[in-house]
Amino acid sequence: MSSSVHTEQSAVTVLGLGPMGRALASAFLDAGLRTTVWNRTPGRDGELVARGAVSAQSVEKAVAASGLTVVCVVNYDAVDTVLRREAVTDALKGRTVVNLTADTPDRARDAAEWAAEHGVRYLDGAIMTPTVTIGTPAGVFIHSGPKDLYDEHKAVLEALGGTHTHLGEEIGRAAAYDIALLDIFWTAMAGYVHAVAVARAEGITAGELAPFAKGIGDILPPIFEGLATEVDNGTHSGEGNPITSAVSSMAHIVHTSEAHGIDAGVMRATEGLARRAIGLGHGTDGFTRVAEMLGRR
Amino acid sequence: MSSSVHTEQSAVTVLGLGPMGRALASAFLDAGLRTTVWNRTPGRDGELVARGAVSAQSVEKAVAASGLTVVCVVNYDAVDTVLRREAVTDALKGRTVVNLTADTPDRARDAAEWAAEHGVRYLDGAIMTPTVTIGTPAGVFIHSGPKDLYDEHKAVLEALGGTHTHLGEEIGRAAAYDIALLDIFWTAMAGYVHAVAVARAEGITAGELAPFAKGIGDILPPIFEGLATEVDNGTHSGEGNPITSAVSSMAHIVHTSEAHGIDAGVMRATEGLARRAIGLGHGTDGFTRVAEMLGRR
Repeated sequence: MSSSVHTEQSAVTVLGLGPMGRALASAFLDAGLRTTVWNRTPGRDGELVARGAVSAQSVEKAVAASGLTVVCVVNYDAVDTVLRREAVTDALKGRTVVNLTADTPDRARDAAEWAAEHGVRYLDGAIMTPTVTIGTPAGVFIHSGPKDLYDEHKAVLEALGGTHTHLGEEIGRAAAYDIALLDIFWTAMAGYVHAVAVARAEGITAGELAPFAKGIGDILPPIFEGLATEVDNGTHSGEGNPITSAVSSMAHIVHTSEAHGIDAGVMRATEGLARRAIGLGHGTDGFTRVAEMLGRR
Repeated sequence: MSSSVHTEQSAVTVLGLGPMGRALASAFLDAGLRTTVWNRTPGRDGELVARGAVSAQSVEKAVAASGLTVVCVVNYDAVDTVLRREAVTDALKGRTVVNLTADTPDRARDAAEWAAEHGVRYLDGAIMTPTVTIGTPAGVFIHSGPKDLYDEHKAVLEALGGTHTHLGEEIGRAAAYDIALLDIFWTAMAGYVHAVAVARAEGITAGELAPFAKGIGDILPPIFEGLATEVDNGTHSGEGNPITSAVSSMAHIVHTSEAHGIDAGVMRATEGLARRAIGLGHGTDGFTRVAEMLGRR
């Protein structure tokens, strides 16, 4: 057993044994924590039990086994189904739940309200990296909720490896970051799969496109980082790349896609945002102007 | 004058003096090439002329001054307006045009047809990096068209700095890569500005989001590169991240955006693609399955 996390809080319960839940439980076991596990569908805990995990027969028994329960299920509907029963609520009283399930900030706020009403101590969080990063330095975890409660359980959470950031006391903050970051990720992925479809229609394989796709990918992180100042200052400089020029590229993409019979709905929606910004008189601004426009009710 | 490119082809003409055209002419001047410039709107060539460029009074005079003419205007409508006049066509006969203007592959094919009909030697290309990279190692240029013609002008083109790749003889190939790569870029940018709008509605500044946005950006290039094999092999493995899981994140993004009154059209279109793939029975596949689905007529 590793001694650093082997304090009185050296017991942890994991609810939900999907691929991510199993990775979390596995990392807790690696860190020498007494780990209790539960999953709605039985039979997911075989390997974990073989490595020393305790398999709980019910949620209430699972949460009673540890001061800290980590929940990682498909969404908050599933969380509610698991936790919002009298036997479970009673067993959780005075204990801490760290909810690493992904959902919206409003659902996190709602869960915190329920927890407060029932004397359950509650932290919300999100895991920003794939299952393979759990227990490694590559994991990225974000948390929100009462800072003292976070500090109390920090050592156990850090047994999951990676970097842990407490984003603030407001309980919805981790989910809000999660939503924003997944927004970047899945929109970019939509661009990638669409680009591949268009390239293939033009006789270019994904492999041929790959080194150039990587090259375009490489310029994104510094742009995402660098544009933040433009957005926060409201400058939105279009020097070198005004929206009017971007919209011309977008129109070419839509045209080429549709000429091949390829749905261009994502780019049509993007072009629509750019054209709306131009219509509002921002054609010479940079594309970040769209963030400002979207945020205006 | 640098001697390496100072052969009999040491003269080059640049048509179009927007920011990119000026950067191209400037790099040619830096390389010691006799550079003739022209722009529809006069007065854009002052600095270039001060550095030794020859300002041509007409397009026909401009193209007659060099064996190689590089065109960089707003789109192919502008190219046609500039080149498709009898005096210009006559002056271009037997000379080479390298068209670095961005547009669709079909327009490149159309331009090549026109060129062939009029005895004009024609190469098409695209510039994948911003104006500031021109004349530096960071520039990325792609070309397509007759390989022997490309080889003949390679040395002059390389005076623009950066890496130059001949993608094939098929004239539309450079434009097709350009469209695919711009598709990735602008879709990802749509994701970024939307994420920033949602984050701000949640009380998170772009600056606070920036390090995490950069982190998400950092995972994209290896994904873009790594998924190519999945796509070309048609495997689309959903292990660890099936479309059913992705669509759940997408729904959370749409819900959170619209709860703040923020247009979620881009993500709605993305979610629609994912749901269509699920409806076709591909829910357990990875998201690259969408590329396959989009490409099927």
